[in-house]
Amino acid sequence: MGVNSNRVEDFSSHRINTEPVMPGMEIHTVCLSPKKTTLQKLKQRLSEIFFPDDPLYRFKNQTWRKKLLLGLQFLFPIFQWAPEYRLKLLRSDIISGLTIASLAIPQGISYAKLANLPPIVGLYSSFVPPLIYAILGSSSHLGVGPVSIASLIMGSMLSETVSPRDEPILYLKLAFTATFFAGLFQASLGLLRLGFVIDFLSKATLVGFMSGAAVIVSLQQLKGLLGISHFTSKMQFIPVMSSVFKHRDEWSWQTIVMGFSFLVFMLTTRHISMKRAKLFWVSAAAPLTSVILSTLLVFCLRSKTHKISFIGHLPKGLNPPSANMLYFSGPDLELAIKTGIVTGILSLTEGISVGRTFAALKNYQVDGNKEMMAIGLMNMAGSCSSCFVTTGSFSRSAVNYNAGAQTAVSNIVMATAVLVTLLFLMPLFYYTPNVILGAIIISAVIGLIDYQAAYCLWKVDKLDFLACLCSFFGVLFISVPLGLGIAVGVSVFKILLHVTRPNSLIMGNIKGTQIYHSLSRYKEASRVPSFLILAIESPIYFANSTYLQERILRWIREEDEWIKANDRSPLKCIILDMTAVTAIDTSGIDLLCELRKMMEKRSLKLVLANPVGSVMEKLHQSKMLDSFGLNGIYLAVGEAVADISALWKSQPDFPEDCNETRQCKETKR
Amino acid sequence: MGVNSNRVEDFSSHRINTEPVMPGMEIHTVCLSPKKTTLQKLKQRLSEIFFPDDPLYRFKNQTWRKKLLLGLQFLFPIFQWAPEYRLKLLRSDIISGLTIASLAIPQGISYAKLANLPPIVGLYSSFVPPLIYAILGSSSHLGVGPVSIASLIMGSMLSETVSPRDEPILYLKLAFTATFFAGLFQASLGLLRLGFVIDFLSKATLVGFMSGAAVIVSLQQLKGLLGISHFTSKMQFIPVMSSVFKHRDEWSWQTIVMGFSFLVFMLTTRHISMKRAKLFWVSAAAPLTSVILSTLLVFCLRSKTHKISFIGHLPKGLNPPSANMLYFSGPDLELAIKTGIVTGILSLTEGISVGRTFAALKNYQVDGNKEMMAIGLMNMAGSCSSCFVTTGSFSRSAVNYNAGAQTAVSNIVMATAVLVTLLFLMPLFYYTPNVILGAIIISAVIGLIDYQAAYCLWKVDKLDFLACLCSFFGVLFISVPLGLGIAVGVSVFKILLHVTRPNSLIMGNIKGTQIYHSLSRYKEASRVPSFLILAIESPIYFANSTYLQERILRWIREEDEWIKANDRSPLKCIILDMTAVTAIDTSGIDLLCELRKMMEKRSLKLVLANPVGSVMEKLHQSKMLDSFGLNGIYLAVGEAVADISALWKSQPDFPEDCNETRQCKETKR
Repeated sequence: MGVNSNRVEDFSSHRINTEPVMPGMEIHTVCLSPKKTTLQKLKQRLSEIFFPDDPLYRFKNQTWRKKLLLGLQFLFPIFQWAPEYRLKLLRSDIISGLTIASLAIPQGISYAKLANLPPIVGLYSSFVPPLIYAILGSSSHLGVGPVSIASLIMGSMLSETVSPRDEPILYLKLAFTATFFAGLFQASLGLLRLGFVIDFLSKATLVGFMSGAAVIVSLQQLKGLLGISHFTSKMQFIPVMSSVFKHRDEWSWQTIVMGFSFLVFMLTTRHISMKRAKLFWVSAAAPLTSVILSTLLVFCLRSKTHKISFIGHLPKGLNPPSANMLYFSGPDLELAIKTGIVTGILSLTEGISVGRTFAALKNYQVDGNKEMMAIGLMNMAGSCSSCFVTTGSFSRSAVNYNAGAQTAVSNIVMATAVLVTLLFLMPLFYYTPNVILGAIIISAVIGLIDYQAAYCLWKVDKLDFLACLCSFFGVLFISVPLGLGIAVGVSVFKILLHVTRPNSLIMGNIKGTQIYHSLSRYKEASRVPSFLILAIESPIYFANSTYLQERILRWIREEDEWIKANDRSPLKCIILDMTAVTAIDTSGIDLLCELRKMMEKRSLKLVLANPVGSVMEKLHQSKMLDSFGLNGIYLAVGEAVADISALWKSQPDFPEDCNETRQCKETKR
Repeated sequence: MGVNSNRVEDFSSHRINTEPVMPGMEIHTVCLSPKKTTLQKLKQRLSEIFFPDDPLYRFKNQTWRKKLLLGLQFLFPIFQWAPEYRLKLLRSDIISGLTIASLAIPQGISYAKLANLPPIVGLYSSFVPPLIYAILGSSSHLGVGPVSIASLIMGSMLSETVSPRDEPILYLKLAFTATFFAGLFQASLGLLRLGFVIDFLSKATLVGFMSGAAVIVSLQQLKGLLGISHFTSKMQFIPVMSSVFKHRDEWSWQTIVMGFSFLVFMLTTRHISMKRAKLFWVSAAAPLTSVILSTLLVFCLRSKTHKISFIGHLPKGLNPPSANMLYFSGPDLELAIKTGIVTGILSLTEGISVGRTFAALKNYQVDGNKEMMAIGLMNMAGSCSSCFVTTGSFSRSAVNYNAGAQTAVSNIVMATAVLVTLLFLMPLFYYTPNVILGAIIISAVIGLIDYQAAYCLWKVDKLDFLACLCSFFGVLFISVPLGLGIAVGVSVFKILLHVTRPNSLIMGNIKGTQIYHSLSRYKEASRVPSFLILAIESPIYFANSTYLQERILRWIREEDEWIKANDRSPLKCIILDMTAVTAIDTSGIDLLCELRKMMEKRSLKLVLANPVGSVMEKLHQSKMLDSFGLNGIYLAVGEAVADISALWKSQPDFPEDCNETRQCKETKR
């Protein structure tokens, strides 16, 4: 076998010295990684865990002054883009800012209603947070404001304990407190670089969750669309549907006609914008148009349509401070913290993924941990100025992007437009009918029902699809946090299942090469006589060492049977290809020991091929290397086969001997 | 580069057709696995999950009659060994049976006290369960009976709610009910082939847990050893220690002298047996010797030593039936079920691991799922005949093995000895002092404190050591189930951490070979100019796709910097070595798409090398293969390098072009 190879020279002091097995033939030795102290290893591991992107690399080899400037830019991205801001960018930013403002105002009012808060809070929340984000945020396209999912969850979690109708002040206090804790939680995740927590909400989970939430939100809007005044405060499918049909006497045909016509209008504009991206403004302008038209309609017919409820008086003026309304003790603190954490994590997920989506389109990168701090601080500031939970909204960001936003200035423009509205235009909303808010919400959330993504999940990964279904039905029938919890559980279970029941397969040689591959996948791969080459496709852990032992013994048994049936040369050596065994723990090491002992008793040779660095290290630390020692570990399967075959050729009587002993022993048992 | 290779022929209909890139040069194509329907895949996956050992393989190609016999042997292993039983084996079995009986009788009484049960229940439990195990069990060396850990946990969990002194009947009922549920739980785990549940108690967790429990048990025995009568029923370190020192006035010097002298005696015999395995009988006989001696002593001095408490009257006779004492409704049912599950899982872990240990020594295999059913049925039967939780005990099995037990007949001999004791010898235990039971327990559990294993964990794996510490201190200071829960959590967290933050490394070519290996580990591995070869050492999942994206981009950035600093030829191609990427989900596929797009924008080529079967399949299902398509996926890193280099050579102007575009684009940003 033509292994024409130079010997790898000694490089680590811990390398095992393998003498060439026979004169004239050299094989490569497996090295250990360079030796490190526990502290060095810990440092490296922690930096990989917390600083995978090496955020401080820009600061290397810079002058003191430059470092200060970079630090300032790092903390406040506005210093990065503001000095380079050109007037010609301003035009695009103003256009896009005004466009999202026209979307933000009706959406703000609607989402506040969704969270059972006074409509004005939705406008407040579209003013302060965008300004703060413009200073701290690193995305140029994120449109900031209240979003449907977070509003829904805040509304449903808080109103389970406190009634927004009976105790409006307490409810408001709790909402601001929950917002504060959401911000605190988000900022701490960013500060502690624990951003990976949100990665545990897999795409599958989110698809199911979003669809479920969208269905629930839409059904809840039937209250407004049908004109029902007695409606359940619960969020599950069954109570909502029974509420709808129980109060059929409250249905008002005027409301229904108005609501559904505007809904159809908005869905049509949405459809147009989806067909042709250039017409994005059609759907962007639809909500404000609907609000204006319906307000005019109600105003004109106000004497005749007393059945259509409208918003009524909204206070004029800027955000009042609300720091004194925060609530740091008392029986409902736990509820506020819990609500804050759930809404915080979900709004973070939405904000970050929206930011990343648009950053990828323009080929720049968004730093997840920095974004978390920006969103967190924005919510903490918001909670002190009468705002509820805000984040980067998908619909607003898409409009912002399509309208040609260049920098975060578009957020400032939007905030200014909201400011003008708050100061001067509030009385105009007096006659805005509530039904229109429901229609706006439905047309906004309907896009979250992503059946195509669900179909794709079904096609690619059945377990992912299961997680998706769990979160969908969990949200629909149980409750939002529990549905989410179940879905995360399914996702984690999937990881554990993969580790607990890993693949193992027999490999064969592809003729004329040193490549070894799965026998069942490659017809051209052929068994190497007397060898059984097994690849294990997972780390070897406590959770799978028992399984792997059983599975490997079964492979050997089946191979023996196959050999007997086909009258081939008997099995003499087992090679474990460790390439994909990316980690090992003490149970895994015990497994290898055990296997080696068992194989020795059956006079079979067991060798390892290509263990990765960390595995080698553990084998060394546990003294396992001493038992495998010489000739026990090879750099590649090909080298192992070549070396061991050569050894057998040089000792032609050995294999028969060995085989006899083995058969003899087996008969005895 | 000498890739002299035959083309792998078409084998799956879903193979991607890669045309040879240039005339005269052929590369291997990557195949998909043979196509299977969802149902076939599900079937295969389920059989891998639940039947990794293919338990029915013996039944294949057998006559109907043979199948029936094999089925009987499968269900009742006694039919397997009984027909081959020889009289000469009987001698060894009688000797070992009597030896373990001498250990079982004092241990039974002591462990019943540990579980706050009447001492006689310990003897009952050493009679029925061993008989049942002899019929159903597949281990020849397991010595069955009550064990310290399970007794401790049952005692501590039940007595937290029900006082064994005030409500002895209720307590007894709950103990039998918990035993029943433990058996039911164990048998169902075996029947449903969910044996892997116990694998989640990793070795590290168990080392810590056992040591913690041993410390607690030993400290609790201070009650008996010091002669204290008022003692806490709690199991945590602090209340136990405060109980010891609060009641210093109750300490009785006669008890202390007697207890500690017998303790020293037993520890000495234990030491002797550990030094010389042949003297195993020294420590095996010590407990019974101590009981006899101390009983005689108390009997002789009975008028003077009223301060030494003794067992008192024990009823003569066989196990009374207790099926009518089982408790299937009422307020404490939940407690009984919970206790049953915790004791069930722990006694199962001990039984299975002890069975496996001794099976490995004699080179036979124990079927985990069958053992679970045997242990479970034995406990269910036990609960109907006044027995509490039993399993394979380590100390008893070791003695059994060393005394030369050959088959489960030794368990039958032991049960017979216990039967004789129950029928005739009970009055002899009247004067047995309680202090001796404490000493027996301490000498039995002290071996569970395995500081050497803990040191080994520290050396090999710091996170395993952390899990060990957590379970140790959790058991000691919080509570048994919670300590165990925390430790399992740490172990699972370790698996998740490995998946969330996987290794990735740069590979280089080892000169003169087709082997590619880590640059940082192998000094002889050298970079291939214009290529960046990255190996990812983990499945790509939702939990790590964000991390991997950041990390890969950082590798590319750092490589670019290195190239600039060292003035090498610019980067043109990135090869992802997917050998260790054993699975991928939808988020992982999105990552690859995203990376490919990003690289295209920078005019870098991205190719994959050696994706495993399941990954190929998912790539195919998600239509990703169409985008990677031709030339995008290679069988091995070496082939990718050879093929792409050849392509560049044949189009000499292309790379410069490509590079210019790229630099140009970068400047623009």
